[in-house]
Amino acid sequence: MKSSDISVAQSNAFIATFDLSPLSSGLLNGLRFAVKDTIDVAGFKTGCGNPTWRDSHPAAVVHAVCVEQLLLAGAECVGKTICDELAFSLLGENHFYGTPLNAHAPDRVPGGSSSGSASAVACGLADFALGTDTGGSTRVPASNCGTWGFRPSHDFISVAGVNPLAPSFDTVGVLAQNAGVLANVGTVLLGCASLPARKPTIIHLIREAFALADADVQQVLSEPLRRLPETLGGALRESLLEEVVNDGHRLATWADPFCVIQWAEIESCLGAWIASAKPEFGPAIAASFQLMSQLDRRRVAEAMERREQYSRSLNEFLGPYDLLCIPTTPALAPHKGDPPKRSSSGSGYYPRTLSLTSIAGMGRLPQVSLPMANVNGVPVGLSLLGRHGQDSFLLQVAKMFDRETTLI
Amino acid sequence: MKSSDISVAQSNAFIATFDLSPLSSGLLNGLRFAVKDTIDVAGFKTGCGNPTWRDSHPAAVVHAVCVEQLLLAGAECVGKTICDELAFSLLGENHFYGTPLNAHAPDRVPGGSSSGSASAVACGLADFALGTDTGGSTRVPASNCGTWGFRPSHDFISVAGVNPLAPSFDTVGVLAQNAGVLANVGTVLLGCASLPARKPTIIHLIREAFALADADVQQVLSEPLRRLPETLGGALRESLLEEVVNDGHRLATWADPFCVIQWAEIESCLGAWIASAKPEFGPAIAASFQLMSQLDRRRVAEAMERREQYSRSLNEFLGPYDLLCIPTTPALAPHKGDPPKRSSSGSGYYPRTLSLTSIAGMGRLPQVSLPMANVNGVPVGLSLLGRHGQDSFLLQVAKMFDRETTLI
Repeated sequence: MKSSDISVAQSNAFIATFDLSPLSSGLLNGLRFAVKDTIDVAGFKTGCGNPTWRDSHPAAVVHAVCVEQLLLAGAECVGKTICDELAFSLLGENHFYGTPLNAHAPDRVPGGSSSGSASAVACGLADFALGTDTGGSTRVPASNCGTWGFRPSHDFISVAGVNPLAPSFDTVGVLAQNAGVLANVGTVLLGCASLPARKPTIIHLIREAFALADADVQQVLSEPLRRLPETLGGALRESLLEEVVNDGHRLATWADPFCVIQWAEIESCLGAWIASAKPEFGPAIAASFQLMSQLDRRRVAEAMERREQYSRSLNEFLGPYDLLCIPTTPALAPHKGDPPKRSSSGSGYYPRTLSLTSIAGMGRLPQVSLPMANVNGVPVGLSLLGRHGQDSFLLQVAKMFDRETTLI
Repeated sequence: MKSSDISVAQSNAFIATFDLSPLSSGLLNGLRFAVKDTIDVAGFKTGCGNPTWRDSHPAAVVHAVCVEQLLLAGAECVGKTICDELAFSLLGENHFYGTPLNAHAPDRVPGGSSSGSASAVACGLADFALGTDTGGSTRVPASNCGTWGFRPSHDFISVAGVNPLAPSFDTVGVLAQNAGVLANVGTVLLGCASLPARKPTIIHLIREAFALADADVQQVLSEPLRRLPETLGGALRESLLEEVVNDGHRLATWADPFCVIQWAEIESCLGAWIASAKPEFGPAIAASFQLMSQLDRRRVAEAMERREQYSRSLNEFLGPYDLLCIPTTPALAPHKGDPPKRSSSGSGYYPRTLSLTSIAGMGRLPQVSLPMANVNGVPVGLSLLGRHGQDSFLLQVAKMFDRETTLI
């Protein structure tokens, strides 16, 4: 489906459309953006994809700080987007509000939880959109929908006015139609100077990360990988995360400590509300919360130690201009109506996807997903990660790829 | 007053006392701790120092992650402590629950917002206590009450289950009776390895920070400063933050961008609840919220840029084993019942205090306040700050001071 032909109604990306004018003029003049419905826009209820949440919370009285920054930089806000309930899914099928359209692959899920934000961008209904990303909620829908996606270094973009899920991993993410817009939006939100581009020193291809991916994903990513050195400059090197961290745990098990911390924190953030409001959830999300509530919280102590060790090891390993390169997701977007089973271990969709997305989460690293490939038209993203705090460099690297070099 | 003679009732430090046994055994075996009432303990309402907040929120169903970590490391929880309403004050005089005792200076405020946590530790009713620290809420009461205090690198201790105030600056802090306990508690919460002590490379005495302090504070800190090199090793050097950041702004004005971001984020976190619940506040806190609501949120964009620039400059300036040294507070604790006027600029108590505390806030730096001096028995703290992420090193440095070298 050509994105220019898609209407707001056909996209099913929005929970509400409106027109909020810029508050000032700046780097984002003339750009239209959409906001995930876990992020406050003044005067609206932040529904978090769940009607009980919406009805049990008052309307926002001010914009989230990140929304304010975008309006002050000249952008125009066109609406709020559908997301997975309480942002706790990677699929994008909302029991109450339906499934936002994956424009390039209409029979597949857009990915979540920032499903509507990715859909709105891929459908051409916004130049960029705000998402959130705790365990992949911006990067996965970017990969599935064929948009650019950015997860910042943890703690570098304000989360004030954004509904907390798991604060140790919560970030505000950006989805965009091209790398130039992505970089400018990132620059505004980070409050950083826009640096001149410079080539990376070393690009580490993470061997275990590619090995986790399906054969078709590995195969279509091989061509963009081959072209990386000529596009970016820098030395390409195969590296093993197991040698970087060296604690005897394989990358395929990183999802495990990640999920322990994430679930413990979700219960801390949402448990009291769930117990008192007794919300109606869709069946898939209800099952996820059920799984979460069975967590043995004594495991938090060891998981926190692993988090600290992984973050330290990765940030000592990476030079300021080094990059990691991994597939954003290990598999194509699942088909609609056929959700993969939720679990944190094994070879299923969730544990493999979370093993890849948890590299940035555990390491506090910034990550950009580039829409670099497709399997018979179904998009799949290639990701670059930088050292903690090197967001501006990473965004400038992303700009070295233009539309011509991407395959969507 | 000798701390061993003070009862729970005399301290007025606690909103509730109880006995929560350790969940396991570890580094904190045998230690008793108290928890600020902005942090969840399962089965209790988290009251945040305000009765309307308490009554409009359900009881916690699980412990905050940081509480869980302490119980798992062998510590015993003895109660929840009084704090300033919604943690939005540096004084520690609560309109509804009274003023926790400042054991060393009973006619002065304990400092806030973690007033009861500092009081409980200084009164000998807990070995250590959890506080929170957004703009000084652990460091200021540590200085006022003559305890050790630790604000971690932003984002390095989980805030899940802790009531958000201004997420870009919110941290979980620790108050402790001695540096050994402080370091062990920090090690558990950070999930980090306990490193062998090593001497700092350079200790930068920040000249403008000392110049902001009252003459009596400068005078009593001169003796511990003189002894720093022999206690710690390392080279002592006078440095100017204005040369490190070099953006034309004097340290005395750092409170300004700090408050812009803090107030904008507080409004994002609490504004909707205030508008809908119409809480009763004490007069001082009501005035603070009134001031906050008048913020021109267009100032957020520039303040965020300054924050990013300050953080980057400070962390590039500091080597991994360098320290900054400043007074924790510019003045002795104010007398009870005579609150200084709240403002973000000028030479009053708040702007001077916030200029000092905002160095860690703007820089994302870890800070330890050491109970090193007193003016006629009234405590005042000396602070050491490290590079972002160097918390473990900083805590080991603090351990080089023992009870003999402190002056409280």
